[in-house]
Amino acid sequence: MATMQDVARLARVSLSTVSYVLTGARPISQATRDKVLAAMAELDYQPNAMARGLASRRSRILGLLLPMDERGLGATETAFVTGAAAAANTAGYHLVLSPIGVGDLDELRRLASQRMLDGALLMEVQLHDPRVDVLRELSVPLVLIGRTADTTGLSYVDIDFDQTVEEAVEHLVGLGHRRIVYVNHSAETIAEGYGPATRTRDAFAVAMTRHGLEPLMIPAEDSAAGGRTALAAALRQAPDLTAILAMNESAVFGLVGELSSRGLSVPDDLSVISMVTSPQVAELATPALTAMNSPGSAVGRIAIETLLRHVDGGNGEIHQQLLPCALQVRGSSGPPRTGSNTAGNTGADGEQPAVPSTEAARRRAATRRRA
Amino acid sequence: MATMQDVARLARVSLSTVSYVLTGARPISQATRDKVLAAMAELDYQPNAMARGLASRRSRILGLLLPMDERGLGATETAFVTGAAAAANTAGYHLVLSPIGVGDLDELRRLASQRMLDGALLMEVQLHDPRVDVLRELSVPLVLIGRTADTTGLSYVDIDFDQTVEEAVEHLVGLGHRRIVYVNHSAETIAEGYGPATRTRDAFAVAMTRHGLEPLMIPAEDSAAGGRTALAAALRQAPDLTAILAMNESAVFGLVGELSSRGLSVPDDLSVISMVTSPQVAELATPALTAMNSPGSAVGRIAIETLLRHVDGGNGEIHQQLLPCALQVRGSSGPPRTGSNTAGNTGADGEQPAVPSTEAARRRAATRRRA
Repeated sequence: MATMQDVARLARVSLSTVSYVLTGARPISQATRDKVLAAMAELDYQPNAMARGLASRRSRILGLLLPMDERGLGATETAFVTGAAAAANTAGYHLVLSPIGVGDLDELRRLASQRMLDGALLMEVQLHDPRVDVLRELSVPLVLIGRTADTTGLSYVDIDFDQTVEEAVEHLVGLGHRRIVYVNHSAETIAEGYGPATRTRDAFAVAMTRHGLEPLMIPAEDSAAGGRTALAAALRQAPDLTAILAMNESAVFGLVGELSSRGLSVPDDLSVISMVTSPQVAELATPALTAMNSPGSAVGRIAIETLLRHVDGGNGEIHQQLLPCALQVRGSSGPPRTGSNTAGNTGADGEQPAVPSTEAARRRAATRRRA
Repeated sequence: MATMQDVARLARVSLSTVSYVLTGARPISQATRDKVLAAMAELDYQPNAMARGLASRRSRILGLLLPMDERGLGATETAFVTGAAAAANTAGYHLVLSPIGVGDLDELRRLASQRMLDGALLMEVQLHDPRVDVLRELSVPLVLIGRTADTTGLSYVDIDFDQTVEEAVEHLVGLGHRRIVYVNHSAETIAEGYGPATRTRDAFAVAMTRHGLEPLMIPAEDSAAGGRTALAAALRQAPDLTAILAMNESAVFGLVGELSSRGLSVPDDLSVISMVTSPQVAELATPALTAMNSPGSAVGRIAIETLLRHVDGGNGEIHQQLLPCALQVRGSSGPPRTGSNTAGNTGADGEQPAVPSTEAARRRAATRRRA
């Protein structure tokens, strides 16, 4: 294996010059620097990764800043992470998984000021995310998975929540549903300004209003128990509801289970659509959930590719991309039981269904269970 | 901020000596080296992370070698990863998520020979895992999450599959179950020698035989559809079965769904226990699954703590630890319907239950549905 002495000999410079190229201890002219780097390449000199990082001024390490709580990652977020790790690896970079949230700014400042990271991906982005300011201050290239409120000058990859909600509502309205409840993340999460929660809330209001329908919404804790509670609240507030659109991946399982416990059948008594969900998760439920399929690993891959363009500088213009979730109809959506609201009847007249189908179903179920 | 010149001045050495301490281009005596490092500390010199890595001969980067496929990570594995990332971060280390499996040995060799990693955690460990040989050859400290067949001289943290299976079988036998089927990973996964699959297979055979019971086993593809198919096969092979123990986290959801589709109730007609499962996942099902709770993030944390002892060298003796999964009884296990097999009747006599309860339940369900 080639040594630093070999490099110095071939480049016809002193050993200390090679060393300075690596450490930056003294300024070295670009011409000399280029000679040294060329010699390293010719000799296939495999420096210590740290030495190479100094020489190239690249650590070849990218940070994935992802706050983690005890709950861990959902399947959808995990796909973002694995997509990013695979793409970084393909490009010859390493992805450091850093549990750095908006409360860990000192840690982030230390990491960034030591030039450990050539660039950073931010996950769990808040509408006003101070991590962005820290990274900008220290000139670390960054890409968001998600979006801040003001995205001027920021590259991001995110789900197209507007289109996703609109397509889900279209599907339900097209089937004849008019009383549709949106089950969002928790009230706390919405209040904190978590983008997916606030964006889907607004998009649902727009989509339903456009159809002349009332945008009923219920928050749910991020758990099966949260889903059960949300279903109970939804049935109290809208006993005539025939469809649920749910953002909360954990809650939707509790919700479907609670429907079954109450003797209500999916989709005959109630249609359920799960938002931004991986096919693997959608297929765990019985019946398998009609869902807006998450673009999954593509989100992480595109984010890394964008970040590397910023790191390389050459083609580093701002890139903002929204990825739609594709509707996949599985077993949990169908026309409402009453049949009075057909696909043709989707105008903006705001009329209520003639028969409160869920109530009817509940009566049927009670009868069935007594049998 | 302090510069390398400041360090040279305080340590009373030349700038090139400081540079050589960082790059290792020339050997520097331990005394001089110590003087330079002391000066860096006194001045709170914040070198570039790469320079610091060279000086300390530590990258402060640990690798998590985790092969990833399109399927992504299950919730249980994700908890291992997030536990490891948090523990590394607490110790001032960075965890690189590297999608390196047994087929990526060149990539691993490159990573290791460049001294990018101070140490490595291996996940998805095969019984004969060539990644272990590569890392040992290149003297990279390593810890397994999982186990190879021969663990001589290797540190590992793994689930105690023997105890976990035994406790699950005890619970079912104690409730009066005698016809119990074990739903394992897929036949391919078992054939590949994936530890969790082969170890639980063997432990189930031992535990059932000890009770004088037949160890019925069915493989299942790692999906909800796989669980449905496995249930059908189990009911064909053992129409009188009253309990299922399932290893396969995805399959168990399909299995429970298929039971419900067939009009069979859990746990009245069939008890189900999910092995090595996170509470979050267990609670998604309806009823919530009685499960052997995965130790979750503790696995990742203990693995990192062990690895850092190896990296530090001081207290780096081999550490082999098995973590049990604790039984948590939720809604999916109860006594078998017939009541003929009570807790007292758990001897090794091998008798069959008097009434094939599942058959009876199926008849009841058919009646119910016709009503």
